[in-house]
Amino acid sequence: MPVRTSRSTLSPLTTDLYQLTMAYGYWKRGVAEHDAAFHLTFRECPFGGQFAVTAGLETAIEYLENLSFGDEDLRYLGSLGGADGKPLFDIEFLDYLRELQFACDVDAIPEGVISFAHEPLVRVVGPLLQGQLIETALLNAVNFQTLIATKAARLVLAADGDDVLEFGLRRAQGFDGGLSASRAAFIGGCSATSNVLAGQRFGIPVKGTHAHSWVMTFESELESFRSYAEAMPNNAVFLVDTFDTREGVRKAIEVGLEMRSRGHEMIGIRLDSGDLGRLSKEARKSLDAAGFPNAAIVASNDLDEFEILKLKRDGARIDTWGVGTRLATAYDQPALGGVYKLAAIRSDAQQPWRMKVKLSDDPIKVSNPGRLQVRRFGDSRGFLGDVIFDIDIGMPSDGLAATGVGDGYRYDSNSGYSDLLAPVFRKGERVSEPAPIEQLQRRAKGQLAALPDSTVCIERASPYVVSYEQRLHDRKMQLIASAEKVSL
Amino acid sequence: MPVRTSRSTLSPLTTDLYQLTMAYGYWKRGVAEHDAAFHLTFRECPFGGQFAVTAGLETAIEYLENLSFGDEDLRYLGSLGGADGKPLFDIEFLDYLRELQFACDVDAIPEGVISFAHEPLVRVVGPLLQGQLIETALLNAVNFQTLIATKAARLVLAADGDDVLEFGLRRAQGFDGGLSASRAAFIGGCSATSNVLAGQRFGIPVKGTHAHSWVMTFESELESFRSYAEAMPNNAVFLVDTFDTREGVRKAIEVGLEMRSRGHEMIGIRLDSGDLGRLSKEARKSLDAAGFPNAAIVASNDLDEFEILKLKRDGARIDTWGVGTRLATAYDQPALGGVYKLAAIRSDAQQPWRMKVKLSDDPIKVSNPGRLQVRRFGDSRGFLGDVIFDIDIGMPSDGLAATGVGDGYRYDSNSGYSDLLAPVFRKGERVSEPAPIEQLQRRAKGQLAALPDSTVCIERASPYVVSYEQRLHDRKMQLIASAEKVSL
Repeated sequence: MPVRTSRSTLSPLTTDLYQLTMAYGYWKRGVAEHDAAFHLTFRECPFGGQFAVTAGLETAIEYLENLSFGDEDLRYLGSLGGADGKPLFDIEFLDYLRELQFACDVDAIPEGVISFAHEPLVRVVGPLLQGQLIETALLNAVNFQTLIATKAARLVLAADGDDVLEFGLRRAQGFDGGLSASRAAFIGGCSATSNVLAGQRFGIPVKGTHAHSWVMTFESELESFRSYAEAMPNNAVFLVDTFDTREGVRKAIEVGLEMRSRGHEMIGIRLDSGDLGRLSKEARKSLDAAGFPNAAIVASNDLDEFEILKLKRDGARIDTWGVGTRLATAYDQPALGGVYKLAAIRSDAQQPWRMKVKLSDDPIKVSNPGRLQVRRFGDSRGFLGDVIFDIDIGMPSDGLAATGVGDGYRYDSNSGYSDLLAPVFRKGERVSEPAPIEQLQRRAKGQLAALPDSTVCIERASPYVVSYEQRLHDRKMQLIASAEKVSL
Repeated sequence: MPVRTSRSTLSPLTTDLYQLTMAYGYWKRGVAEHDAAFHLTFRECPFGGQFAVTAGLETAIEYLENLSFGDEDLRYLGSLGGADGKPLFDIEFLDYLRELQFACDVDAIPEGVISFAHEPLVRVVGPLLQGQLIETALLNAVNFQTLIATKAARLVLAADGDDVLEFGLRRAQGFDGGLSASRAAFIGGCSATSNVLAGQRFGIPVKGTHAHSWVMTFESELESFRSYAEAMPNNAVFLVDTFDTREGVRKAIEVGLEMRSRGHEMIGIRLDSGDLGRLSKEARKSLDAAGFPNAAIVASNDLDEFEILKLKRDGARIDTWGVGTRLATAYDQPALGGVYKLAAIRSDAQQPWRMKVKLSDDPIKVSNPGRLQVRRFGDSRGFLGDVIFDIDIGMPSDGLAATGVGDGYRYDSNSGYSDLLAPVFRKGERVSEPAPIEQLQRRAKGQLAALPDSTVCIERASPYVVSYEQRLHDRKMQLIASAEKVSL
């Protein structure tokens, strides 16, 4: 059997070349092991919404735990040449990479926690070279899975208590695009996936019965349903639209009655084309009249949260929603624009941090300096607001925090709070336990329930209050002013 | 060091559960080894265009070559239960899977060949169970990479001779989403990628210099450029927009002159924000005036083919286009809707094929019966038209082929032709040689050059002629008519 190892993308080379050329530059200049702080943030919640379900951290952790350069990797890097044909990298640098051991502190908002624009999802503090090197993989894992978990949460919100199943593997962006989409979709609230590997690897429930090709294999639709019921009487959801949906429902009922006479119960039917609203109402009537009030109606075919909302408003009788392409690729916004920015640097732990901002003409794009944390205030009714603060400046127990736009946010010590970023690595050693995926799903569900309904909705959502601790805000403004002077 | 093997997605479980429940049904009914023919097709060229660059086959082949169920896989499948809590699968079936060896014939349009809607990209003929099982992975690989190769070809078309670089890993859909995007983008015509793993694994040129974080690490932009030039004088492209682009260009020139005095030459500058058209013209003037007429101007920042066209029409002086998110995720259409349909079945090789079509109210969605091939006619001026035919019916040397819409297409034996689908597997053994990736890129380029300019363009493209051999067409119409009767 061929060896599978070489196919893994858990490689230190899953990065952009410029991370390695910069790493080389830092090493050449002797600053590779200066202390640096980076944050991963996104600037806008996806899909026109006002929240995001954080996900992808565990995948990023796997990458970090595997961060070591092997002989093949170094041989490849040694083979790269520059404009003059000479090697890009000195051999001594490759030796440095060979010895490299991940040594950063990483703190992060745990998976399943709801996050908002501008909040640091991940904080990396450690050797400059390492913090730089890991940027691309961290962004890839957190950008994509946060995007999909958020899309799933929106679908589940629209489905209003019905099950949502993820069916996207065939249209997903690569095998692993499909696999990580299944994982993130479950965290966001999906009940199950069609992706068997996701079931095996992550313990997510898997679902599936039969496709049109099953029906087409037989001489008639009736024979195909009968054969399916015989083969797998404990998993009978009949796909009824291969020829004519009404006829298909009639045949499903016929076979459902035959099953019942043998002591089995059909689970339901699936609609995969046509006017799902009308067809589901008709099917519900037929199933009820035939004595199958508990038979579920599953629907699929280019569904998204807006289509589900519309179908529900029109009174569709659909119990379970199968969503493929539009979930697994986040079709209407297939990328979250997360960024990873240098926020502070110092030559060693005895020196004070030098604060850094990345300027931009667009104030929303100016990054935040320091080493940041997010405090989420709440009371028995739910969450009240978040304040981003610098852990070295600290956070007064009450005060008026600056908001980027509009009024300041007043918080006080009477509210409870929790700080969102939790330790994940200390000097390169993992210090957090991976949580079971069901816990991540419950966490997301609980957090969404604690947020205002006006924020957790699909259409015309209002922003949740995210503000900056006043002294962090002031420092940032000073840095912007002085950086603008320096650049002249 | 942790073992990487378990992370591979080259698993037989990279499939939808319903492929396995159907496989089980076929096995139970004793038809698992009946002979079946399937085709993979797409129904519409992506991005509103009129062509697609076929890609992803080599990834699908890797999956097929690795198709074998291991103990862990079978243990997992054995653990799955149905509605009554009893196992979904009999142990005997799991034993059957353990012994399963891929035994299909696979023919496919080679990577890099241009394909059109309704053409079979892959034909699978072999045991029904196997043809069914591999559907999901085949679709995943071919859908995604064909999508990205096509997007890349459109970008290269818009860039009109300039280099296009793929920079998308940080926003790609999973590590492997990024890796396969890099591969497909190169086939479609990109010159290089930022993804180092893609460079190592596929031999694609890799490019990269430095990011804003490099500049921010230093006390001043000038110092940062100087340090970069010292560290890596043979790879000097300065990113000039960290503070102010005009100032950045001035400093790049200053450091470029210093480099020259030491016998090195800066490669160029990169613009990453602002009005790229105006900034590139100003930068070109400054570089030329300072004695750097050969310094390249690289531009990036949310580029796609339409933005590149617009910038070029406005006279932008950009030499190299760096495209990230919008290429690696095919942002404006992140999935190709490829499908995989049963087309014929027989109990064994002594029996005649029973033809199959999947009906739909939408005629464009009705699948084609038989075992199909595509003949591409052409002369010295280029390609004239394609005819889809059934290999058992054959193809007359001249005739009038039916087109789906509009007039018939008249082809004759005076035109040269080639048949597009080539053997890849015979009875499960690979019979094709993998081609070097540069060859796939050249092939795509050559094919695009042989197609009418009116088809190979970005805006208001005209369709290329794809028609059906008359008897195949007639058979399909008969099948539709009789299937509609059967379903009543």
